[in-house]
Amino acid sequence: MSVFQRLKGFRDFLPKEQRARREVFDTIESVLQQYGFREIDLPALESLDLYMVKSGEELVEQTYSFQDKGGRDVTMTPEQTPSRARILANRKDLSTPVKWYSTSKRWRYESPQKDRLREFYQTDIDIFGADSVQADAEILAVTVDIMEALDVLDAVEVLVNDRRLLEGILATHDVEDTEPVMQVIDDREKMDAGTFREELQEAGLDQEQAENVDELTEIRGPLTETFDTIQDVAPDGDDAEDAIARLEELRDALEAYGIADQVVFDLSIVRGLAYYTGLVFEVFDTEGELRAVCGGGRYDELVDLFGGKQTPAIGLAIGDAVLEELMRREDVWPAEALQTDVYVLPVSEDVRTEVLELVRELRSTGLIVETDLSGRNVGSQFDYADTINAKQVIVVGKRDLENDVLTIKDMATGEEEQVPVGDVTRYVTDRLQ
Amino acid sequence: MSVFQRLKGFRDFLPKEQRARREVFDTIESVLQQYGFREIDLPALESLDLYMVKSGEELVEQTYSFQDKGGRDVTMTPEQTPSRARILANRKDLSTPVKWYSTSKRWRYESPQKDRLREFYQTDIDIFGADSVQADAEILAVTVDIMEALDVLDAVEVLVNDRRLLEGILATHDVEDTEPVMQVIDDREKMDAGTFREELQEAGLDQEQAENVDELTEIRGPLTETFDTIQDVAPDGDDAEDAIARLEELRDALEAYGIADQVVFDLSIVRGLAYYTGLVFEVFDTEGELRAVCGGGRYDELVDLFGGKQTPAIGLAIGDAVLEELMRREDVWPAEALQTDVYVLPVSEDVRTEVLELVRELRSTGLIVETDLSGRNVGSQFDYADTINAKQVIVVGKRDLENDVLTIKDMATGEEEQVPVGDVTRYVTDRLQ
Repeated sequence: MSVFQRLKGFRDFLPKEQRARREVFDTIESVLQQYGFREIDLPALESLDLYMVKSGEELVEQTYSFQDKGGRDVTMTPEQTPSRARILANRKDLSTPVKWYSTSKRWRYESPQKDRLREFYQTDIDIFGADSVQADAEILAVTVDIMEALDVLDAVEVLVNDRRLLEGILATHDVEDTEPVMQVIDDREKMDAGTFREELQEAGLDQEQAENVDELTEIRGPLTETFDTIQDVAPDGDDAEDAIARLEELRDALEAYGIADQVVFDLSIVRGLAYYTGLVFEVFDTEGELRAVCGGGRYDELVDLFGGKQTPAIGLAIGDAVLEELMRREDVWPAEALQTDVYVLPVSEDVRTEVLELVRELRSTGLIVETDLSGRNVGSQFDYADTINAKQVIVVGKRDLENDVLTIKDMATGEEEQVPVGDVTRYVTDRLQ
Repeated sequence: MSVFQRLKGFRDFLPKEQRARREVFDTIESVLQQYGFREIDLPALESLDLYMVKSGEELVEQTYSFQDKGGRDVTMTPEQTPSRARILANRKDLSTPVKWYSTSKRWRYESPQKDRLREFYQTDIDIFGADSVQADAEILAVTVDIMEALDVLDAVEVLVNDRRLLEGILATHDVEDTEPVMQVIDDREKMDAGTFREELQEAGLDQEQAENVDELTEIRGPLTETFDTIQDVAPDGDDAEDAIARLEELRDALEAYGIADQVVFDLSIVRGLAYYTGLVFEVFDTEGELRAVCGGGRYDELVDLFGGKQTPAIGLAIGDAVLEELMRREDVWPAEALQTDVYVLPVSEDVRTEVLELVRELRSTGLIVETDLSGRNVGSQFDYADTINAKQVIVVGKRDLENDVLTIKDMATGEEEQVPVGDVTRYVTDRLQ
């Protein structure tokens, strides 16, 4: 063992693992591209004050924040929303809606655990400048399509809520401290109805409010089936009424997208209340074993904080760690195997020229081709061809060249074929299609 | 303007710019993949001591190095070789040759200038565990192929040297301080032959050495044409002889790859002498305006320093900044335009369901499709469709649906066509092929 170790909470991805990860990222991005989301790429390091606008002092302790050589307080970006808000505030020329995504590294100074890393990837997707239910529906539709493209749609539930329903209940009487109420709602599944109501009252609700919350949390199912009931028990007030109107329009849009059955209403989805202004959603595995696979919501007032004009926004974030856990559990994580089309095997040094010419020709057709770089014997070269998972091995000996015929071995079947030198490229490309 | 600004030396890439950059990175990576180079992904943050092995104290001042919340001295990686060496030292199970690449962000605390950024991308390519000339040739071949794939091969020269030739000259007598000699050689083009020899003697060479260096630096041209002359004037000594033998074998391999004319011998290529142990190379624009586009060389003794077993290595690094300058100058930088296949335009809110169904169907064929998210009128929607560079716009009105015929506008020609609703998807996909 070397004296040098990787930092805890950080990961190395060597070729086999990286190939699988690349496939997952590519799948996510190709769905996003079909929706007209556009890739952006923003700095990994930003001024600390930009990132404190949203998160305040606690950010400093939970991030890699430091003073650079020039005395600037900077932070390795733990998320990307403040950077996006910075751009929106400075670039008045962007035509809306702005539909951005990026998959990039994020850093948080957390206690490293299995699914709490200090360096991780996150795909962030936002629509800025559209406050419509159509934008909400598009974010949910792309979420569902990504889950489907990753082959985990059957293993997850997309849970939605509108935080204003809960706010409406709390607003009917003055609940001073909403945090304990949220906590009780978050723990709903651990209690029976009686205990739940008691706990809500202990947390500061009166009896009527507690009943109202209980009724709403009882409703859980596809938005198509539950909407009428939600409407019946929704609290009064303009905001709650708007929430109901939007949920209805959302239901219709999701039906048109053909995904209404996949979207489940659940009042216990209360992520980051201070931040979100309307729809919130999270995707959970149906077995309830993992943290949220992804989530997001509408945050119409955030960009404002950064000095920009009021800009409605809805976003979605997908981290890599929980997603990988889920895909491995569901046995749909891509194969962690190298991909090589052809290995060209020189039997001796005196055939190098012909081998390199052949390698060059094969690569020019787009194939993945390797050859010996170490002067190894035939047996070692076959071992290496195995290691890199080569599909075909072309054996090139001096005698073969004299006879104008090369041996091509199919590594899956073990079958060998004699092929005239001039036909080798066509033979191999035919086999690999 | 917002109060929040980006840090100096950092860049934002919005969708149009990012699309071009993505195309460039994809081109580079697809060439690397054909050669059997495999993508890896390593931490952005590492222990400072790992990165000081190679670069020493000066590293601290030139990097984003800091103490994390746990008191560890860490650095945002300014390069990737030490991280790769760490892995090689810890993973004895890797079968060689290891052929790795990655395109990732790097950070250096430099004075920001046009082509000296504090955050930049670099593609690092290495072959570990093969000390053969075949490996050297493969690195040069992939370099040439990348330049060709990026359409800049005619605008650059690939300059090669073997640092042991120069060392051989200096070794024949004891030159104590080699640095001034390197500096003079580096400035060769600015002087006539007489001045050059004088400067070399001032830098510590005797008359014979100075003549020898002058003769070697006079040789400049494709390796195929210059090799015999290099051989004639090469200094004595085992290392120089080995250098000559390898240059000869390299010439033959480059000929087999069909790229011998693109590789030019140039003794003035003296990058990082302390680090490289044999072949060194750099790619310069032929007009001599820019810094090196990319470069690399053999460093057989470096991995050793990190506690691993002796591991021969040859590497290549391509930064994004100079490459972009060159490609822009040569007018081969990809178009910075958004790509959208279809915009589906609802004339009024009462056609939303049909529009979303159509959008969904079109996206399922793999097309990039957007629709209105803001309830805009027809004119504004056409403006937006222009902004996102939509190729086709499908207009969906209530009356159109009743008549079962939609209008499809080709945005390039302005031509409009009436198409039965059921034929729309096929019509559009046919047009876009």
